Amino acid sequence: MTVLFEVLATHGEARLGRLTTPHGAVATPAFMPVATLGAVKGVSPQELTAAGASIMLSNLYHLALRPGIDVVERLGGLHAFTGWDGPLLTDSGGFQVWSLGALRKVDDGGVTFRSHLDGSTLRFTPEGVVALQERMGVDVAMVLDECPPWPVSREAAAAAWRRTLGWARRARAARRAQNGGGGVGGLFGIVQGSVFRDLREQAAREVAELGFDGYAIGGVSVGEPMAERRAVVAWTAPALPAGKPRYLMGVGTPQDIAHAVQHGVDLFDCVLPSRNARHGVLFTRTGVLKIKNARFRDDPRPLDPACGCPACARTSRAFLHHLVRAGDLTGAVLATLHNLRYYLDFMAELRQAITLGTLTELAESLATRSAGDDPGPNDPLEQRST
Amino acid sequence: MTVLFEVLATHGEARLGRLTTPHGAVATPAFMPVATLGAVKGVSPQELTAAGASIMLSNLYHLALRPGIDVVERLGGLHAFTGWDGPLLTDSGGFQVWSLGALRKVDDGGVTFRSHLDGSTLRFTPEGVVALQERMGVDVAMVLDECPPWPVSREAAAAAWRRTLGWARRARAARRAQNGGGGVGGLFGIVQGSVFRDLREQAAREVAELGFDGYAIGGVSVGEPMAERRAVVAWTAPALPAGKPRYLMGVGTPQDIAHAVQHGVDLFDCVLPSRNARHGVLFTRTGVLKIKNARFRDDPRPLDPACGCPACARTSRAFLHHLVRAGDLTGAVLATLHNLRYYLDFMAELRQAITLGTLTELAESLATRSAGDDPGPNDPLEQRST
Repeated sequence: MTVLFEVLATHGEARLGRLTTPHGAVATPAFMPVATLGAVKGVSPQELTAAGASIMLSNLYHLALRPGIDVVERLGGLHAFTGWDGPLLTDSGGFQVWSLGALRKVDDGGVTFRSHLDGSTLRFTPEGVVALQERMGVDVAMVLDECPPWPVSREAAAAAWRRTLGWARRARAARRAQNGGGGVGGLFGIVQGSVFRDLREQAAREVAELGFDGYAIGGVSVGEPMAERRAVVAWTAPALPAGKPRYLMGVGTPQDIAHAVQHGVDLFDCVLPSRNARHGVLFTRTGVLKIKNARFRDDPRPLDPACGCPACARTSRAFLHHLVRAGDLTGAVLATLHNLRYYLDFMAELRQAITLGTLTELAESLATRSAGDDPGPNDPLEQRST
Repeated sequence: MTVLFEVLATHGEARLGRLTTPHGAVATPAFMPVATLGAVKGVSPQELTAAGASIMLSNLYHLALRPGIDVVERLGGLHAFTGWDGPLLTDSGGFQVWSLGALRKVDDGGVTFRSHLDGSTLRFTPEGVVALQERMGVDVAMVLDECPPWPVSREAAAAAWRRTLGWARRARAARRAQNGGGGVGGLFGIVQGSVFRDLREQAAREVAELGFDGYAIGGVSVGEPMAERRAVVAWTAPALPAGKPRYLMGVGTPQDIAHAVQHGVDLFDCVLPSRNARHGVLFTRTGVLKIKNARFRDDPRPLDPACGCPACARTSRAFLHHLVRAGDLTGAVLATLHNLRYYLDFMAELRQAITLGTLTELAESLATRSAGDDPGPNDPLEQRST
């Protein structure tokens, strides 16, 4: 089977949906925790399920470098390798390769880059990255794209889009050839076009004509201001086919996610909850807590009394303060479990709000939630797994 | 209530027992995972329970430095602070203070030392450490002792013992005075005497006369050869009161534990399973695995097919190899959960073997278990939490 997407209810442009994959169904809008090397840092597959995750994201780029796709394939694919038995999506590596700067060289045939680990040379082609993801048996594979930096000229953005579209066509053809038109899992196309409205709308039309199983908005969270990012989402999401899932790559804060859901986005991934957790920046229903702050030294309250994560169920802000300041591993683990639970609970709230027709009120309430501390580390490179 | 110990069955000198504390009962022989700062590194209280732990050990010395006993007390004691709701034992800090070398100065009244964190000066007295542990509400407190190094002269060992005995007398009196003879939790005395048989036997008699709730064998795992350590256990354990629990501090390998159980020891603690896990040294029923070794790169088997830990239930040696080599946090977490489960399962095997009368066979089978790799990091400072 491939993937199947159903829209179960709508509220304005927002959609409540179900993405059915070979490894199970995902209620959308959904957040995909980021497991760069096959695991969310500090979290076992069992704990990820317990936190409420229904789909996990991993990175072709990182897995290709280490342990290598051959190893993953010999071990029975990415599900067997990681122990995560639910739906799995892999990013194609376009963003990571772009982040390498001088270590990579793009041509029309693909991208050649040096491993940031050992300096060895690798090459990704549109056909190759489809094949690598198929060999890992993922539920959703992403096409190879060229992710332009921000800011970028209109000409450069348009040129990058022409190349990405050509790659998308080749990826689609490779998929058909390899799988007799079917194949396990789905393949998603990616829209680029930087912050240029006509380019984004054109890109959405052109990639949709190729007939993918879903469509991603790429090229955001690359340093652009929030207003630009939100404009890109507001232009692009409605221009994508209504019957297919829409995935906003590498975004973002709860506020960004609520905004995108209001414009019809269904899938998200971001390292923000897990990376911020390791730095002691914790999301709660009453604001963001920088847990290392001295005012939490004696605070007996749970991080968030409405949260059911292992940290909130048993311990206090004071204990997290103590462990995170001391650099104790358990501090990173408990903080990560908390932030993931917060994000996954938040997605459930968004889904409920679509059903109830209260999405606007929920989005507006987020302003209150962040009235505590400021959100802390939030530059784009903190959001994407580079 | 204080603590209550019952011997339920014996096999030779080995005992099957039950230690009942204000926070629950512990089946002995038992292993106490080490939670230096209040948590076993990388492990939530819930996961510690799931691994099979019934009692956790923490360190007065470390908690006194950070976050400070005042903080722990204000937050409702060490159980409320850490979220561990089962039995809790704290070490008094004698061993840690001894490890400070030039940073500490012992006199007959107690020990003065510099914090290894900020250089501030602290003083532990026999009465003070009892009071600090009582304020944290622990189930079992340990007396302050002087832990001589190895090797040490007979004269120095005897002098250290005279001082430790005086401190034990003062601790016992402090306990009576503060609690009207009762008190919550129990207080254990500690036998020292280095590797001198007559000193150890004399120390066991003298400390027993003071009437503690249990007795520890201290001053081992300080660099002495295995044969010396085992001789100390074989001399000292049988010389302690049969009706009270016996605790061998900071030991050790499964082989050392089996040996001590055969000589009537009931309680153990050691950082070996957790610290070795973080270095990729993993215990299994067929030998010790150094998981970073290249031969595990493609090994699809669980670490130990007979283990029910989160790593063995879902993942492979190859995945642990990948994560531990990459320094991914999840590698440390899964490895720690595995080694703890191994130790706690092993204690259950020992208890069953006492019941069945098969302890000798079990101890002999351990030689086979370590036929794989050698046990890896196992110097004394790797075993004790300094």
